[in-house]
Amino acid sequence: MASIFFLVFLLVFSESAVPTAGESLIKRNAKPCQRLMLHLHDIFQEGINNTFPNATSASVTEGVPGFGPFLFGKLYVFDNPVTGDENMNSPPAARARGFYLYDRKDTPNTLFLITLSFNSSEYKGTMTMLGNNEHGAETRDIPIVGGTGDFFMARGIATLETEVLDFVKSYFRVRMDIKLYECY
Amino acid sequence: MASIFFLVFLLVFSESAVPTAGESLIKRNAKPCQRLMLHLHDIFQEGINNTFPNATSASVTEGVPGFGPFLFGKLYVFDNPVTGDENMNSPPAARARGFYLYDRKDTPNTLFLITLSFNSSEYKGTMTMLGNNEHGAETRDIPIVGGTGDFFMARGIATLETEVLDFVKSYFRVRMDIKLYECY
Amino acid sequence: MASIFFLVFLLVFSESAVPTAGESLIKRNAKPCQRLMLHLHDIFQEGINNTFPNATSASVTEGVPGFGPFLFGKLYVFDNPVTGDENMNSPPAARARGFYLYDRKDTPNTLFLITLSFNSSEYKGTMTMLGNNEHGAETRDIPIVGGTGDFFMARGIATLETEVLDFVKSYFRVRMDIKLYECY
Repeated sequence: MASIFFLVFLLVFSESAVPTAGESLIKRNAKPCQRLMLHLHDIFQEGINNTFPNATSASVTEGVPGFGPFLFGKLYVFDNPVTGDENMNSPPAARARGFYLYDRKDTPNTLFLITLSFNSSEYKGTMTMLGNNEHGAETRDIPIVGGTGDFFMARGIATLETEVLDFVKSYFRVRMDIKLYECY
Repeated sequence: MASIFFLVFLLVFSESAVPTAGESLIKRNAKPCQRLMLHLHDIFQEGINNTFPNATSASVTEGVPGFGPFLFGKLYVFDNPVTGDENMNSPPAARARGFYLYDRKDTPNTLFLITLSFNSSEYKGTMTMLGNNEHGAETRDIPIVGGTGDFFMARGIATLETEVLDFVKSYFRVRMDIKLYECY
Repeated sequence: MASIFFLVFLLVFSESAVPTAGESLIKRNAKPCQRLMLHLHDIFQEGINNTFPNATSASVTEGVPGFGPFLFGKLYVFDNPVTGDENMNSPPAARARGFYLYDRKDTPNTLFLITLSFNSSEYKGTMTMLGNNEHGAETRDIPIVGGTGDFFMARGIATLETEVLDFVKSYFRVRMDIKLYECY
């Protein structure tokens, strides 16, 4: 009786989870092991005469002439507040630093490199995100490629959604739905 | 009898696949779980007077004087077509965007950051690649550090090989042999 | 008797290691599977008149006026020797290339992107590191997001510690304690 159970167990198990040589141990994880909803705020400097003294981002290269109207080649560096709600002046949840680089000729699109630094009572550590950010898409996914501290070795996806884009105030706000699928 | 089998099973199993505290679950995956062969086309702008109006890449910084003849410090941004065969005008398989940055004093070498965006009937999603690209090497491997959509959470290696480098046409073509070893 | 053992086994096992649908197979790895201790040497060029002809790094953008005294926006490209001990002139263990980008308004901080290239009798291959580098922190962790060759598919953490920062010699040395937690 026991041996029958045993054989059944072996069969079921070998089809589902026992790794064999040359087979990956990585399997789809249906649900995130950790999830954070954050809001990134960016006040972008306009031109050489900075009319936004509280700007949190600025460009350090010029767009390339002849490559269209979408700022191709313009590299912005940022040091942006990140909050848990939509209010830029709420207590900081993290700080986002890095760059975005306009890299598309036919529509606004950036390569987005974000390091998120957490130093709160809730979290200490960093995450690194890096991917293609198509501004016109309602949402876009950016791979999270690594982390440290409370996010040691993390991997996942940040789904970005532009909540505000205000050229008068020189301000944009992006919602970041951070889903980690590899947690240590 | 069953208990003997059981003990044998336990012994064998504990040596091969049962993870214990402090042991990694990640094991070598001998074969790629997904493979794509693609060709990246780059028409690089030369100088401020762009004599190549169809250029798909351009530099946004100058090389550093005194750092040798290999363009050290020159940052190129690109928006490049990617095809399934060697013909640049074939139907697009993907689009490659990002930058390459000359970062070596004694030979042509770039830091290569590619986001591949797929939007075809076959694939939708992105991949992010990032690594050292030594131009003179017959082939070189670039880590694939993340992905989205059909390439959700992907990791792997892209083996690059320069197929054409034509300074008269201001054109290069690179074959990308994309091998994913982590597929979700 | 055997079936009782079997049931106990099943219970224990299902709580510790059998992955179920929607559960991640990735678990914390308490100890690094590989560890390297290296030293990175950087002689940074100062100004347009390079008074350090052996400089291994140079800036290619200017800091942004109005963003504080910490070089915000300044992008340095480097081609740095890496040794096994603290002596810059020791036989090279690897070469570090990439960039650091000042991206913080209130303290010296860089986004650090390092590709480490090994070509010694001991190791051949590369590693890519990418993360936030807060200069004032005694140590800081940078995610290692990929690798090739002997470091095929590697992931881990590099703990950086500034050992020397000498503005007269225009030189800094950083100790890199490289810990891989995913080895193939």
